[in-house]
Amino acid sequence: MKNRKSKLKIIPLGGLEQIGMNMTAFEYEDSIIVVDCGLSFPEDDMLGIDLVIPDITYLKDNADRVKGFFITHGHEDHIGALPYVLKEINVPIYATKLTIGIIEHKLTEHGLMQTTKRKVVRHGQSINLGAFRVEFIKTNHSIADASAFAIYSPAGTVVHTGDFKVDYTPVFGDAIDLQRFAEIGKKGVLALMCDSTNAERKGFTMSERTVGRTFDNIFSEHKNTRIIIATFASNVDRVQQIINSAYKYGRKVVIEGRSMVNIITTAAELGYLDIPNKTLIDIEQMKNYPDEQMVLITTGSQGESMAALSRMAANIHKKVTIKPGDTVIFSSNPIPGNEKAVSKVINELSIKGADVIFQDAHVSGHACQEEIKLIYTLVQPKYAIPVHGEYRHLKAQASLAENLGIPKENIFLLSSGDVLELDKDSAKVTDKVHTGAILVDGLGVGDVGNIVLRDRQRLAEDGIMTVVLALEKHSNQLLSGPDIISRGFVYVRESEDLMGECRQVAVDALEKCLQKKVTEWSKIKNTIRDDLSEFLWKRTKRSPMLLVIIMEV
Amino acid sequence: MKNRKSKLKIIPLGGLEQIGMNMTAFEYEDSIIVVDCGLSFPEDDMLGIDLVIPDITYLKDNADRVKGFFITHGHEDHIGALPYVLKEINVPIYATKLTIGIIEHKLTEHGLMQTTKRKVVRHGQSINLGAFRVEFIKTNHSIADASAFAIYSPAGTVVHTGDFKVDYTPVFGDAIDLQRFAEIGKKGVLALMCDSTNAERKGFTMSERTVGRTFDNIFSEHKNTRIIIATFASNVDRVQQIINSAYKYGRKVVIEGRSMVNIITTAAELGYLDIPNKTLIDIEQMKNYPDEQMVLITTGSQGESMAALSRMAANIHKKVTIKPGDTVIFSSNPIPGNEKAVSKVINELSIKGADVIFQDAHVSGHACQEEIKLIYTLVQPKYAIPVHGEYRHLKAQASLAENLGIPKENIFLLSSGDVLELDKDSAKVTDKVHTGAILVDGLGVGDVGNIVLRDRQRLAEDGIMTVVLALEKHSNQLLSGPDIISRGFVYVRESEDLMGECRQVAVDALEKCLQKKVTEWSKIKNTIRDDLSEFLWKRTKRSPMLLVIIMEV
Repeated sequence: MKNRKSKLKIIPLGGLEQIGMNMTAFEYEDSIIVVDCGLSFPEDDMLGIDLVIPDITYLKDNADRVKGFFITHGHEDHIGALPYVLKEINVPIYATKLTIGIIEHKLTEHGLMQTTKRKVVRHGQSINLGAFRVEFIKTNHSIADASAFAIYSPAGTVVHTGDFKVDYTPVFGDAIDLQRFAEIGKKGVLALMCDSTNAERKGFTMSERTVGRTFDNIFSEHKNTRIIIATFASNVDRVQQIINSAYKYGRKVVIEGRSMVNIITTAAELGYLDIPNKTLIDIEQMKNYPDEQMVLITTGSQGESMAALSRMAANIHKKVTIKPGDTVIFSSNPIPGNEKAVSKVINELSIKGADVIFQDAHVSGHACQEEIKLIYTLVQPKYAIPVHGEYRHLKAQASLAENLGIPKENIFLLSSGDVLELDKDSAKVTDKVHTGAILVDGLGVGDVGNIVLRDRQRLAEDGIMTVVLALEKHSNQLLSGPDIISRGFVYVRESEDLMGECRQVAVDALEKCLQKKVTEWSKIKNTIRDDLSEFLWKRTKRSPMLLVIIMEV
Repeated sequence: MKNRKSKLKIIPLGGLEQIGMNMTAFEYEDSIIVVDCGLSFPEDDMLGIDLVIPDITYLKDNADRVKGFFITHGHEDHIGALPYVLKEINVPIYATKLTIGIIEHKLTEHGLMQTTKRKVVRHGQSINLGAFRVEFIKTNHSIADASAFAIYSPAGTVVHTGDFKVDYTPVFGDAIDLQRFAEIGKKGVLALMCDSTNAERKGFTMSERTVGRTFDNIFSEHKNTRIIIATFASNVDRVQQIINSAYKYGRKVVIEGRSMVNIITTAAELGYLDIPNKTLIDIEQMKNYPDEQMVLITTGSQGESMAALSRMAANIHKKVTIKPGDTVIFSSNPIPGNEKAVSKVINELSIKGADVIFQDAHVSGHACQEEIKLIYTLVQPKYAIPVHGEYRHLKAQASLAENLGIPKENIFLLSSGDVLELDKDSAKVTDKVHTGAILVDGLGVGDVGNIVLRDRQRLAEDGIMTVVLALEKHSNQLLSGPDIISRGFVYVRESEDLMGECRQVAVDALEKCLQKKVTEWSKIKNTIRDDLSEFLWKRTKRSPMLLVIIMEV
């Protein structure tokens, strides 16, 4: 009897339940490799949280088997959690040149450069690691040097697109390597894991190059004004096209905003940007040039309150003041959730007299329906595993896949932690491993949980009222107080009566307890809290958090 | 020598700086009339606030001259502040039948029915009030019975469109009375105040009737499933069309969601809805009909967390459980700021197996560029005063007006409080009156101001730490404490060390004070707070609010 071969396991460790935290483990026998290691930004109800990273308990529990990270591209939702994760599991990182460059910036900030192995991989090159071979395949995306992976295992081949689009006329480098997708497909592909972000959108995503034509048009129509363009810090090709238009129309370029300066510096050093001599100038030199010879490229296209453009719009930028006649271009679409913030910045700019342009100056970096269908048709996978997107997007891709003839039972919308076991004979979710979101607040990683968040929510809604009493040991006689201090509840100077009444409610509650010979402090505290809470709700229809503190003297 | 005539004054008391709080005073000598009285919903940084209403100090200061309110239509951003404002200034309300019906609902809730005079006005009818005559002109909008006003004064005529669109084939009643706009225009109009909401959008807004055709198509394609449709509670015509399609396809209709039940009941009573016999059923009767004979019309199209559809999606609705195969239609677009909440509901519905449709099932209620140009061309005003919208929208209308030949200096983008004095010879902003936003939180109107909001923001970010000490009178010796209690800062059970260290920092700070013979409590408090704040920032990179309380015993 022949030895039965093992199956391949695919385990999303972030993703659907933790949008942005893209991270997938591929497991074959004693080898685990991980694709991407992203972070996400806090949801509206995660008050005070800075970042959210995936819970990697599963990887830590299997640390001896984890061989390395393969990173598809340099966006935060694919690399952002690396510095946190590497402190727990120190394995090598494999990625293309620009992606490694951007990662190294993070490693330096976190003091991890010395301890982290990293290898630059070229498109077309393969890495052997444990039971796997991973081939890097050229794709197009809104950041240069993006890769898809062909992941070869004894159980079969998985193609993972990463974030991608099909750009036949990219600004830098080659178009997506469709021939290689076809070749690998021809040899037989077990599963395709394909980007779903734009799976609800019909048609084809426009080439990045079309934005360059828009810039040329805008530059030719605004020859007499300063031009300010906001875009994503990491969109190197976009910046290249702005530089091209600036050069063509005889303008100098200033890059403004810390994250953009970082990435553009890295990209230029590594040869991903072609900047004509003397075109780029320092912001300090701006004063030496007339407005009509200047272009500013800036962060803040999402209305982020601390980004450069928002500070310009709010008149708190140290170096740039918006003037009537300035032309401001949003080379971006608002990411869902940022619409209002972006609109606020547009209004502020308009009020200051700027001419704001936000049409035709952006294209998406993600594949629309026709591109997704193209990849499926080239790769011809047995199983479809839509990735990258909310449930609605995964579902939209699933129905595209079904229309292309993939049987419904071969399409898997995986939740975080699902263990999909597959080979050419079958595929099935067989297990669920622990996953989750770890909140990062300041230096604290994971020390803010649901209780703290619920308290913050409550404090945000109605504030807090603190009641302090000093009681005599044993007798429980009131020695001092009750003192009442509130914050975020009501403006106190206008509510002195209310505070006086609260004090009386607390005194009455204490007396009630003493009369009833209640001596346990926890009961006294509860009585005061309950009475005060009822009183406040009746009087104000609000429920501030109530903190009753008894000092024993 | 002839007596010089007075000028007309137009004063927006809400609007640009208080989006949603639509309210404009028209003043001629000793007469003031007010158009609309809207509220707005809190911005993201107004933590815990329920509603925002306009500051009407100006009207209160001139209460003897205020003659009445003219209301263009029954949306919250045009009527919502009435119950609050009427408690301060009791004058009559003039509006069309449905608008009065909706207002009366509010008056009843606030116990104001007995004390408030109100008059139902028909389209075409005029009201004489003080120096003014106000004519009601039929328009179309996303709520029935909307009006524009022609406001006649001795200084000239102002046409105020209210919120409007041009619908040549409305679902209920007549198309907008374009002939009357033309007639009034022909006689000479001083100023046009025109809706700017869609002024950035090219073309023409589609007729409400087109949505009915979409419903018919969806109903014919989903004959075997339950259909659930979410839309705006006040869009009576939309509900009518759903009822029409339901009737045509043999389905019963359930209305769900408190605000929708209220408005639909009012509209049906007043004859704005034509409901075939036995079509509308109570939600309790739903169980008597198979899914394919049911349509639910529900609130929650904006992803509001407490609305009916959101509760169904989250599986916490008492009467309705989403089932695989349910067809859910969003007959709405997300209002800016609600995109993420709507997407969340769509994902939850999809996960439960519902088929979610959100295309072609909505049209806007606001005029696009071609409609705005039409109104300008019919009315031919001397001055243009774009209204209703953010600055970017007003500016977009201003440039349409300029293209239509209105001189730039005759176009006014008014800020709240601007006093525009105008007659046929000139128009000029001559003064600025006090305006503002009053925050409503529970029963409190105006008792939450900037300090309270800033505290709530701070509490929301990093929580609070309270330090309590009991000191001996005179000697300032520590009798009890310091006790440290934190909320929303860090999960305490995992941070006992940190709390211990905080206590030590507080003790050290107190000792430092005593050694230096510092006896003033305010100084002792400040020292403890500063030392603790520095310690916490170093240790955690967070800044919880610090409350130091000293009890004197």
